[in-house]
Amino acid sequence: MPEFFEVLPPKEAYQKLEGSYTPRLKTEEIPTAEALDRVLAVDILSPEDLPAFPRSTMDGYAVRAEDVYGASEGLPAYLEVVGEVIMGAEPPFALRSGQAAIIFTGGMLPRGANAVVMVENTQVLGEGVEVLRPVAVGENVIQVGEDIRQGTAVLARGHPLQPQDIGGLMALGIIRVPVYRKPRVAIISTGDEVVSPGQKPPAGKVRDINTYTCSALTARAGGIPLLMGIIPDDRAALLDACRQGMEQADIVIISAGSSVSTRDLTAQVINSLGKPGILVHGVAIRPGKPTVLGVVENVPIFGLPGNPVSAVVLFTLFVAPTIRRLSGAPAASSGRTVTARLTHSIASVAGREDYVPVRLLEVQGELLAEPIFGKSNLIFTLVRAEGTVRVPLDQGGLSAGEMVEVLIF
Amino acid sequence: MPEFFEVLPPKEAYQKLEGSYTPRLKTEEIPTAEALDRVLAVDILSPEDLPAFPRSTMDGYAVRAEDVYGASEGLPAYLEVVGEVIMGAEPPFALRSGQAAIIFTGGMLPRGANAVVMVENTQVLGEGVEVLRPVAVGENVIQVGEDIRQGTAVLARGHPLQPQDIGGLMALGIIRVPVYRKPRVAIISTGDEVVSPGQKPPAGKVRDINTYTCSALTARAGGIPLLMGIIPDDRAALLDACRQGMEQADIVIISAGSSVSTRDLTAQVINSLGKPGILVHGVAIRPGKPTVLGVVENVPIFGLPGNPVSAVVLFTLFVAPTIRRLSGAPAASSGRTVTARLTHSIASVAGREDYVPVRLLEVQGELLAEPIFGKSNLIFTLVRAEGTVRVPLDQGGLSAGEMVEVLIF
Repeated sequence: MPEFFEVLPPKEAYQKLEGSYTPRLKTEEIPTAEALDRVLAVDILSPEDLPAFPRSTMDGYAVRAEDVYGASEGLPAYLEVVGEVIMGAEPPFALRSGQAAIIFTGGMLPRGANAVVMVENTQVLGEGVEVLRPVAVGENVIQVGEDIRQGTAVLARGHPLQPQDIGGLMALGIIRVPVYRKPRVAIISTGDEVVSPGQKPPAGKVRDINTYTCSALTARAGGIPLLMGIIPDDRAALLDACRQGMEQADIVIISAGSSVSTRDLTAQVINSLGKPGILVHGVAIRPGKPTVLGVVENVPIFGLPGNPVSAVVLFTLFVAPTIRRLSGAPAASSGRTVTARLTHSIASVAGREDYVPVRLLEVQGELLAEPIFGKSNLIFTLVRAEGTVRVPLDQGGLSAGEMVEVLIF
Repeated sequence: MPEFFEVLPPKEAYQKLEGSYTPRLKTEEIPTAEALDRVLAVDILSPEDLPAFPRSTMDGYAVRAEDVYGASEGLPAYLEVVGEVIMGAEPPFALRSGQAAIIFTGGMLPRGANAVVMVENTQVLGEGVEVLRPVAVGENVIQVGEDIRQGTAVLARGHPLQPQDIGGLMALGIIRVPVYRKPRVAIISTGDEVVSPGQKPPAGKVRDINTYTCSALTARAGGIPLLMGIIPDDRAALLDACRQGMEQADIVIISAGSSVSTRDLTAQVINSLGKPGILVHGVAIRPGKPTVLGVVENVPIFGLPGNPVSAVVLFTLFVAPTIRRLSGAPAASSGRTVTARLTHSIASVAGREDYVPVRLLEVQGELLAEPIFGKSNLIFTLVRAEGTVRVPLDQGGLSAGEMVEVLIF
């Protein structure tokens, strides 16, 4: 093999990639109602006090707390009822000493009132009401600005919007919101042996799997997949496809064919696209050692191995965090993990991270991770798996019965 | 209050709802490439053997294992090289005794060959090759059908498709796939005090939050939200909106106003829509007791309390599993939970489930759940939270330092 083959541990490999390009995030403004899971491109400060008026949290009577001080069942406080607060309207009256008003949850307190007595603690008496328990000033009331004060930081730039955040923005009247554009990911499949899934492959050929797996993983990581098709093992054709990918997308993935010659071709093409070119050629990981990480003109380029299990593991480790970074999302929002007890020992070689697909089983309330030992070329090993267990770089394996962390697909 | 007010524990309430309608799932066929997270409507059996031909898993030489039996560095086996397997093509030659062929990972074994010797264990000698180690029959080869056999169950009806499943289906040439239609969820907002978020609310009025929170939660649970708008507290108008919702959707949500009169109106309207009507009026849960669960003409109808924290908790407990059930997905695919250590004690009342919003913090590698004690009417309590801790029905609270399960939003 002609290239300088530098095999790095996964973490260092990712850091080298990360340090070799500068995310240039683009912003777009979209309706807040459509912004679920999109990443905020600005800090949001509250433009107003919420609520804008004192609201009752109970059905009952708006009162002046001082009028019901010391009230009890034996010695109720009698108040004159001067009106009812209509939902959604400003009360046209004010409470004076000795007065109360009927109010419902969410109603606006009349001027003069400073607390609400629950209806359960009252009884109607003629034109008025008897209050059977005292209330403190502010009791059963949400004060102006108690939910959020004008000028307070509400949500930070880089935050992926959750359902309740959408609600919060709407509450403040923020119906359009600047978010980062989703990064586009060009997916190129190579290999003379690869045909489109719609075809019946002749002897010696196989259907394209990785384009579609990578496409789904891209969507899940918050990117927009651009399918560039299947490119034959031809330097000029691959170079052309990569250039198109770099023009149209923010990230380029080349799902290399499985043969060494295709992998070499991928590496040569990445290096001839521009500077700096290949940064890492080979990662100390199984499955997936023959991985290429590169950057050309600030565009991250990935050469993933052809076998489907490697492609998924490497996508998860390298491409997904790159998509998130180019989405403006925090690095911390990595994959979902669960803790489970390993059912069988896994052997490994120190100095290499092993990723072993596992099935998750719940037995008597305990979560078990059962390794699926299969050749990494088998897509259905992966279909049966719910995640992978990582065997750390410096460990010679994991023992049955150990608690392990499973990275969920 | 005129209705029979039956307050049930959450689990029983959900079971009563579940038992009162029959999911009638509708199927549609869509491109597999677009089927991520969609739920399979049929069992998928493999239509063919995968791979369809014996493939090499290494770069090296295709051989007859019997020809290299006992080979070693000291006593290599010499084989005549009769050709090279071209990627994606059926080899036009067969191996006879004493012969080998150059082969790459993914290449098709020539007839006569039954194993592959890694290139690392060979050395070129003249027109032939010396093999320095023996191989067993089948070594470094994926046999026909080893990934999956024709007729084998691949994926089961009700399975939500993951990225690797999309790849597996493509590998089998299954480029279109029958999935269940996503359930449509009509979201009706009520309350004379509620205005659209685009408006500046006059004194006494507030912007609609729950329509948008419920809409985002619907999308996340796998449903299609249909926004029916804000309906005034008027029986005829609400009845009309509900009827439209039932015509257009599979589930109807009424986000009730906060006042008791609106809640009563919601209940009356659900009962007058048809049979069986209201099943549960009140759930032993905080926040969110005044919840209505009903079914009319096999359509589940939810009356959710107006306050945003209740709405989110109740959506998660009742509406999300209903959406999943009407998506054809297994009940088990419930919300994501993590285990964390509680930072502060939470008081509760036995006989009621409390859901307390918490923030998650990682301190020295440990995950901590910090309760956010806020009034349940405050949307920004929820915006600051990452999930809720459940205080079980029969427990008087949770103590600081306990390990608790946090339901992630």
